[in-house]
Amino acid sequence: MITSTTNTRVRDIRSLQRRKERDSRGLAYVEGIRTVLGALESDWGDVALLIVAPDLLKSDRALKGIAEAEKRGIERLDISAEVFKTLSNRDGPQGLSAVVRQRWTSLRSLELEDGDTWIALTAVADPGNLGTILRTADGAGASGIILLENSTDPWAHSAMRASTGAIFSRHLVRAEWPTFLAWAREQTVTLVGAADDAETPYRGANYGARTILLLGSEREGLSTEQREACDQLVAIPMRGQVDSLNLGVAASLVLYEILDQREASSVSDSADSLDVLAVTDVPEVAEVSE
Amino acid sequence: MITSTTNTRVRDIRSLQRRKERDSRGLAYVEGIRTVLGALESDWGDVALLIVAPDLLKSDRALKGIAEAEKRGIERLDISAEVFKTLSNRDGPQGLSAVVRQRWTSLRSLELEDGDTWIALTAVADPGNLGTILRTADGAGASGIILLENSTDPWAHSAMRASTGAIFSRHLVRAEWPTFLAWAREQTVTLVGAADDAETPYRGANYGARTILLLGSEREGLSTEQREACDQLVAIPMRGQVDSLNLGVAASLVLYEILDQREASSVSDSADSLDVLAVTDVPEVAEVSE
Repeated sequence: MITSTTNTRVRDIRSLQRRKERDSRGLAYVEGIRTVLGALESDWGDVALLIVAPDLLKSDRALKGIAEAEKRGIERLDISAEVFKTLSNRDGPQGLSAVVRQRWTSLRSLELEDGDTWIALTAVADPGNLGTILRTADGAGASGIILLENSTDPWAHSAMRASTGAIFSRHLVRAEWPTFLAWAREQTVTLVGAADDAETPYRGANYGARTILLLGSEREGLSTEQREACDQLVAIPMRGQVDSLNLGVAASLVLYEILDQREASSVSDSADSLDVLAVTDVPEVAEVSE
Repeated sequence: MITSTTNTRVRDIRSLQRRKERDSRGLAYVEGIRTVLGALESDWGDVALLIVAPDLLKSDRALKGIAEAEKRGIERLDISAEVFKTLSNRDGPQGLSAVVRQRWTSLRSLELEDGDTWIALTAVADPGNLGTILRTADGAGASGIILLENSTDPWAHSAMRASTGAIFSRHLVRAEWPTFLAWAREQTVTLVGAADDAETPYRGANYGARTILLLGSEREGLSTEQREACDQLVAIPMRGQVDSLNLGVAASLVLYEILDQREASSVSDSADSLDVLAVTDVPEVAEVSE
């Protein structure tokens, strides 16, 4: 068991707190029983190393997960509680963390199908917002996030924590704007931008069969070029004095509207194929059956 | 101009970073041009003191606002850029902050009317979530937030920043659960709780004419007693692997569903009174007219 905070491997793990190190090595440090088990259980979580502080780790579920991971050949590093705390980003550390390989999906390999929803984010700055959008993407059945331009790092601790594990269940893509746009045209997607001053409300808007929801940064919103590239601009009604919503909230409202439309239309499709006559009732059935 | 970081008044202002000081004195420290101007412009913002670093403050709009405030008798304290930075909670301080009197609405004074929406939060822990919910409450036309049990402080810097000024436009109420429940019964509100395992989806649920949306804490959700007190429990569909959404996101989805129902029904009401026959088209009209 490692008991020195200056041990080479411990320093190596600690260096992953810096984005530059994470980027160049393609690794990330994840912490907490739930997150680490989520990474292990997911196809997306390539766990390179489990870090265990036996003095802190009491959860049976965690110990079971670690035993299974060791059987699969995942390396385990035992460190003292004291050393663990020097790595930890949180109060009350649970004694389990991991080094994971960052998983990126290449834009070129991506083929959209009808019913797919993606989010494209321009220069999102707040890691909490990015993590929250990953979490909602998972909840609303969206496939993943395409990060355009200089985005904050989804593999930063605060983004991963806010994602509550969705970083391992959703696709992450990086792309430059021109490459992204060319790809989107090829895939015949409906590119929908969110803009405060759009005339079409987000509810009832046409999102098409394959949708990419494009959101600007917290400060700047969408650029003129981006707005013009969109097939549709939608607005969220603002009934008070603030002029916009939190980015994660705005994304979530639109993603759940898209989900609602997709599920209503799929119920409607199956009703058609069953030759049901009272199709006017179908949207209500869709909501009750959830 | 004050140039000493240990000046008594400066220390006094700095002490407002501690909740205990804020609570006992009923004051808060707010920062940034937008927030301070928002406080000045709002009926809710009782500004006790403006703090100005002339070397940092270049905005014409801010200088104009300060001049107006001084005319109205609001005290102004000039401090050096160096001293200002020791008070500031952010990078790139803009040179304008203020001490405001906390504004609380008493539950006893509160009379709900048809069409009113409120949020009641149980032991919300994250100031960013609380601020985000204030911001969305403003956007979705909800009146304010009732804080139940030990909630995080809405007058903390991070909560106020996340609210983007909505802390000055929405009502804030503090109450114990039994007092709150007795009051809610008197007001004949529909108490709607959000719960992952509820059978009724949040879309299309019945929210009544006067609604209080009850949300549990980030970790615990609603207690059994709270669930049983609700007239209606609603769930947000989860289609992926995470088991819940961020608290601010969950609140926002339900608040915007309530807004949508209210606006659809008010258009429907006016259509009725105009004796319009094609009332089946009305919900669509409601959405297009936003």
